[in-house]
Amino acid sequence: MKVLPLSKVYQLLEPGPVVLMTTAHKGRANVMTMSWHMMVEFEPPLVACVVSSANHSFAALRASRECVIAVPSVGLAAKVVRVGNSSGRDIDKFEAFGLTPMPAQSVAAPLVAECFANLECKVADTRLVNRYNLFILEVLRAWTDPAQKKPRTIHHHGYGTFVVDGSTIRLKSKMR
Amino acid sequence: MKVLPLSKVYQLLEPGPVVLMTTAHKGRANVMTMSWHMMVEFEPPLVACVVSSANHSFAALRASRECVIAVPSVGLAAKVVRVGNSSGRDIDKFEAFGLTPMPAQSVAAPLVAECFANLECKVADTRLVNRYNLFILEVLRAWTDPAQKKPRTIHHHGYGTFVVDGSTIRLKSKMR
Repeated sequence: MKVLPLSKVYQLLEPGPVVLMTTAHKGRANVMTMSWHMMVEFEPPLVACVVSSANHSFAALRASRECVIAVPSVGLAAKVVRVGNSSGRDIDKFEAFGLTPMPAQSVAAPLVAECFANLECKVADTRLVNRYNLFILEVLRAWTDPAQKKPRTIHHHGYGTFVVDGSTIRLKSKMR
Repeated sequence: MKVLPLSKVYQLLEPGPVVLMTTAHKGRANVMTMSWHMMVEFEPPLVACVVSSANHSFAALRASRECVIAVPSVGLAAKVVRVGNSSGRDIDKFEAFGLTPMPAQSVAAPLVAECFANLECKVADTRLVNRYNLFILEVLRAWTDPAQKKPRTIHHHGYGTFVVDGSTIRLKSKMR
């Protein structure tokens, strides 16, 4: 894994890919599937996300105040769905689905070795957690896997329908 | 335009498309380009978004507490970028870029006739506006254009690089 400058983190999340979120709590790591996230600030990168209080990860995220957001390419789509279909209450999802937890540098939650990008995050604001399950995260450290060239991400349209990244177009934008 | 059930709104925004946001303030409509948004609740649909206080639309959104989120397909990409490159302080962007404002039903902000989906929204929560420019919107009414079949959306990767929707895959997901 190679360090990604924090100023480029938004280029990973702004396009709306399905991501994995890992947590570690009471000595046990877990991983969930998530699509409700957005950028809030470029640098330091702030990310908002919604983690349902029905998810096993909710308590871990709230208590540990740390997580990793891992971005999978389409090759992992079947595993990503299996992660979403099951709960860390019942199984060790890393072992069950062949995902490899790797030590992170700034947080206890693990990186996911198979993902092309991993973002180590701490919880920065919990004011909207009680009402909306909405967390504001700060990305402390970002990693990309140089071996995965031009990874194509997936975008969820509901009920297991995903659109895969297609062609790239470039237009003269003044927008960052 | 045809009514879309509110329960399906998340299927439009969860995949992370670049969208337009219209506002109306002091008798004048405006439109901006936006990628920092996410779903917060299924139904009634709640959407979080970040509108920079540097944008002309910020004051209009805060004062009027209403907007429309319009979803463009790739055919509008060049116009979407022009909207993002300019400010409503200087020009009437609808006229300048050939976008057609259409009356909405529940809000003063206009629909964008050329977009394949339009969501009429009111501001539901402003607690994170001062700190993060983050608004929570409630979608009051949703429209889709039945004439636009299988629209392909665009996803921003920074500096005018956009990835267009590619192929669709279907997996057995228990997730809504």
